[in-house]
Amino acid sequence: MYKINENYLKLPGSYLFSTIGKKVRAFEAANPDKKIIRLGIGDVTQPLAPAIIEALHSAVDEMSQAETFRGYAPDLGYEFLRNVIAQKDYKDRGCAIEADEIFVSDGAKCDSGNIQEIFSVDNKIAVCDPVYPVYVDTNVMAGRTGEYDELTQNFKDVIYMPCLAENGFAPELPTETPDLIYLCFPNNPTGATITKAQLQEWVDYANRVGAVIIYDAAYEAYIVEPEVPHSIYECEGARTCAIELHSFSKNAGFTGVRLGYTVVPKDLKCGDVTLHSLWARRHGTKYNGAPYIIQRAGEAVYSEKGQAQLKEQIAYYQKNASTILQGLKEAGYTVSGGVNAPYIWLKAPNGMTSWEFFDYLLEKANVVGTPGSGFGANGETYFRLTAFGSYENTVEAIDRIKAL
Amino acid sequence: MYKINENYLKLPGSYLFSTIGKKVRAFEAANPDKKIIRLGIGDVTQPLAPAIIEALHSAVDEMSQAETFRGYAPDLGYEFLRNVIAQKDYKDRGCAIEADEIFVSDGAKCDSGNIQEIFSVDNKIAVCDPVYPVYVDTNVMAGRTGEYDELTQNFKDVIYMPCLAENGFAPELPTETPDLIYLCFPNNPTGATITKAQLQEWVDYANRVGAVIIYDAAYEAYIVEPEVPHSIYECEGARTCAIELHSFSKNAGFTGVRLGYTVVPKDLKCGDVTLHSLWARRHGTKYNGAPYIIQRAGEAVYSEKGQAQLKEQIAYYQKNASTILQGLKEAGYTVSGGVNAPYIWLKAPNGMTSWEFFDYLLEKANVVGTPGSGFGANGETYFRLTAFGSYENTVEAIDRIKAL
Repeated sequence: MYKINENYLKLPGSYLFSTIGKKVRAFEAANPDKKIIRLGIGDVTQPLAPAIIEALHSAVDEMSQAETFRGYAPDLGYEFLRNVIAQKDYKDRGCAIEADEIFVSDGAKCDSGNIQEIFSVDNKIAVCDPVYPVYVDTNVMAGRTGEYDELTQNFKDVIYMPCLAENGFAPELPTETPDLIYLCFPNNPTGATITKAQLQEWVDYANRVGAVIIYDAAYEAYIVEPEVPHSIYECEGARTCAIELHSFSKNAGFTGVRLGYTVVPKDLKCGDVTLHSLWARRHGTKYNGAPYIIQRAGEAVYSEKGQAQLKEQIAYYQKNASTILQGLKEAGYTVSGGVNAPYIWLKAPNGMTSWEFFDYLLEKANVVGTPGSGFGANGETYFRLTAFGSYENTVEAIDRIKAL
Repeated sequence: MYKINENYLKLPGSYLFSTIGKKVRAFEAANPDKKIIRLGIGDVTQPLAPAIIEALHSAVDEMSQAETFRGYAPDLGYEFLRNVIAQKDYKDRGCAIEADEIFVSDGAKCDSGNIQEIFSVDNKIAVCDPVYPVYVDTNVMAGRTGEYDELTQNFKDVIYMPCLAENGFAPELPTETPDLIYLCFPNNPTGATITKAQLQEWVDYANRVGAVIIYDAAYEAYIVEPEVPHSIYECEGARTCAIELHSFSKNAGFTGVRLGYTVVPKDLKCGDVTLHSLWARRHGTKYNGAPYIIQRAGEAVYSEKGQAQLKEQIAYYQKNASTILQGLKEAGYTVSGGVNAPYIWLKAPNGMTSWEFFDYLLEKANVVGTPGSGFGANGETYFRLTAFGSYENTVEAIDRIKAL
């Protein structure tokens, strides 16, 4: 008789955003007249930029003719895309990353979930608390976390690095030595950032203790302050200790388009084995490439027109972030993030828990946010709002919250 | 110090098709004047059907306007696609499969690689020999197979079910009881099929011993004989023992478009736990949906125009299959498959090994095929050709082989 992967049963409840979705659908069904404003899931709302639309149409036309039709993509992704990524995201920033160290994929969520597969199940992970749930949940599924403790809301064998108001929501080096360290800056969910000097400390630490940093740079396009690094490879020594994940979801509005990439430098080695070779093997065996037309859309992100149009799109969301940040401050909330990030992290008022505030906001203001406790024990009493709504809806949501 | 997933080191050499790619590139570099014809990888060559192109353009236009823009897709895939799949691929064939038992993905390769994650690492797998390498390799990576034995070219803990000329390349029920059984009909690589009555025996067996059948139906569109089932759910009792994988790669030319789906019936349970809930959890946590525009392309596959156009496209490849089958027979080869399948399985002549014949064919006829030994020990001395080239190239390749 077959057996299931029992690790799945350790996962408490269902995936955060599925739970939110269910609650919102139930509220909608009960209140069909209410206009709900969604500032919960980090899903974008602005249409694709014209340069991207043009590239998509053109690639679709190529697929209609035998001479220009494309079947399976090369394992790592098309060179036209990997070359421009290596140039614009790395070399232009002084980072020594080559095109053949870039693996194109269908998004950073998949990569951030799959990357743990190339590591031993015995490895110990360290995560920020609060944290993007995918890092933890995928390690639970792999059997790397031990049991869940209802009381602490922690997994027994995970090293949690508290990100609190006291430390500016920036994790401190852990006392227990981890094998894999998940970092994400600008951070999801807190919107916090760290400086290049601070990130350098993490790189030095990882190299010293023999840990790998899985660096999620999904929100780097929102960085406005010069001391905040866009890539971990801006730090010296990162090529021997860091994997970097990139998303096109937030910098180019690709949440429904699906494109991302992961960088595994060839200098990253465990004994004789390069992690590049392991990830290449996984990529080639369990994955079959992002669609050709989507890879062409990714290329257009880096074109001159694309860059100009996306700068405007990001500015649009940044204005939303400012609107939320300033509005909530004016309304007397304790709030952070929202400067170099599309996420605003606020303290639930009047001693409410995260889910109490979720229900309160949904019922009284018909605004959907994300309960901080969904991101970890130290997210309790916090709440995340995102800048990805339309400007009009964002203004209206903040007006409603102010009026509460 | 972190450790890698040591199971990766058990994999012998690199992924079959990567190896072929390297050999072909080396030959090309050394012989730039030679016109190579590729009948190796199962990659299609015909352009996308007009109905699909139209759907893609239309969906791209939707993504250009805020009112019709789509972000993250629903976890299981869009209803418009799941509904039409449930109707056309199942209900119309008398199979009781509902839309919420269908999980849309970016292809059957990913799903066939990922599906094992929801099962215990202790489970024992049974595979045909020869077999599509992804089934075995992904289980190796997961630590389910034990060590590789160079001598037998087998993994110690895998149950291999020989598919030989003697049994018509159809596996027999294994003597040792497996937990997971991978079946693929029409088969890759042999092109063999089994009848509905034969498949019913497998379903009955799986239900009897408590095994799950992972049924890969990637090539069902090529079936011409009425007694060959298109879906395992045509068999009674399959809802309690079978998961089915579907690809759009071969029935709609989507190798570079990326779309597939997996069916997990809600009756498939291990104790109280439905495999549907586990796969839903995996899908929601480690995956983020196929692109909206690609799901619209998938919908167009089932439209009246799409169906008519794809019938022609499949007929085109079927004609290639016949051309190869007949041509090789005329040239004196021992050959099978190619009737209900786009694959032709031939015995290497004159006692050559599979790779010897690969090199011979590449050098003497400049034709690329796939060595049977790459699919398992019992594939040795066999060779796979595919029907996915252009008709002109297929004819020329066979003429060249005949002239050897």
